[in-house]
Amino acid sequence: MCELLGMSANVPTDICFSFTGFLRRGGGTGPHRDGWGIAFYEEGGYREFRDPHPSADSPIARLISDYPIKSHVVISHIRQANVGDICLANTHPFTREMWGRQWCYAHNGQLGGWQALVPAFYQAVGDTDSEHVFCWLMGELRQRFTAPPSDPEALWKALHGLCERLHELGVFNMLLTDGRHLYCYCATKLVHITRRAPFGEARLCDAEMAVDFVEHTTPADVVSVIATEPLTDNERWTHMLPGELLVWRDGEIMAHYSCMDGD
Amino acid sequence: MCELLGMSANVPTDICFSFTGFLRRGGGTGPHRDGWGIAFYEEGGYREFRDPHPSADSPIARLISDYPIKSHVVISHIRQANVGDICLANTHPFTREMWGRQWCYAHNGQLGGWQALVPAFYQAVGDTDSEHVFCWLMGELRQRFTAPPSDPEALWKALHGLCERLHELGVFNMLLTDGRHLYCYCATKLVHITRRAPFGEARLCDAEMAVDFVEHTTPADVVSVIATEPLTDNERWTHMLPGELLVWRDGEIMAHYSCMDGD
Repeated sequence: MCELLGMSANVPTDICFSFTGFLRRGGGTGPHRDGWGIAFYEEGGYREFRDPHPSADSPIARLISDYPIKSHVVISHIRQANVGDICLANTHPFTREMWGRQWCYAHNGQLGGWQALVPAFYQAVGDTDSEHVFCWLMGELRQRFTAPPSDPEALWKALHGLCERLHELGVFNMLLTDGRHLYCYCATKLVHITRRAPFGEARLCDAEMAVDFVEHTTPADVVSVIATEPLTDNERWTHMLPGELLVWRDGEIMAHYSCMDGD
Repeated sequence: MCELLGMSANVPTDICFSFTGFLRRGGGTGPHRDGWGIAFYEEGGYREFRDPHPSADSPIARLISDYPIKSHVVISHIRQANVGDICLANTHPFTREMWGRQWCYAHNGQLGGWQALVPAFYQAVGDTDSEHVFCWLMGELRQRFTAPPSDPEALWKALHGLCERLHELGVFNMLLTDGRHLYCYCATKLVHITRRAPFGEARLCDAEMAVDFVEHTTPADVVSVIATEPLTDNERWTHMLPGELLVWRDGEIMAHYSCMDGD
């Protein structure tokens, strides 16, 4: 299996603190040795760093945890391979351009019968189930909407329905973003926390490190972090429910769909 | 204007030496302060590093010049902005997936009337002429070929014809690759060099650095470097001609189209 990390914030925020704990799980405190990646959205642009080597030993990962890249939305992934070789082509996150925006995605879980889904528009470069179903999902959205719908809820509902279909194929925990909204779908395991004033101290589970957010924030800041497992041991994280899709923007939950909602 | 750097090699090769000289031109020995990027193809996968800050001061660029990433194909770009703001979305190289491969592109020059070209399939994320015409070019190829043609020359000829059309709009020096072939189109300025046995010493123009390639190669290695300006001052670089398209693979020129060739 793999682990996911996401962030949505209302001000450009670096993810150095969370990432420091997260990357230790990539071959340090955790078994996810088969590559890692992180994508940042800044000023409408997008950049990603990916490495097929363990994050705990990676000089690129070390740079990222020391070099504060300030962003509204971040997606990161550390991999423990099941489907597909350990190589760059199979390293999350995956990206495709749709409607003039870069859409970025990472997946945790394993699916069955995914080869039967035929993607429109997009094709996988590597040979993972994760990238294949990402291409399928994006192609389905693009076939239904030739441009971003004026009612964003139409898109969100369609996305929830597609996630539900993938959930039927196995474990499908997912982060997806176009750089504005961050979509989190939970099949089995995703937790989140929103930090806002009054800020306090947070202490990492995976590294001897604490931060007092009061020193790094203004009272208006809202920063939410989503992860497979809680990253800190002195804060209360909220567990998502199976079949739940959360739509984040600027650190806040904009919409929420559960497995009770129809397609 | 900007500067381009490309590499095609028959063995996985790092570009640390060339990149060390090249990145000095991004705000050090040259005026290209408005961002830089580099893309590597490894094991069928792709990764890129992009930064909207001057390469000469960039900790990410420093890491890349010290961290040998071995690759068959590399494209890099340093930017001196003309069209479009200085921001990540406008930082080359640009990438789109076509036929299950990541296609990567960088451009030097400035075009007129490019807004009239309507891209199919792909849309620009930023607002540069460079990315817009890349989307157009990729869309044109995808419309003509729904899959990679069995005769690759059909693709190469079509690409040359599209480059010729863009050349009519202004200065269009370009590097494009799918990770196997490296396509170099010259409107005004591109030079190249092929290093093979017997290897000798090369000395950078832009930094006090020399390398004796005998120590880093085997006799079968073939490594070609393409750049806007020669990067070394003790080797003979070949100047491309206006209207010329070179198709490289594994360090060798596979095909050559000149402005005398019809579309």
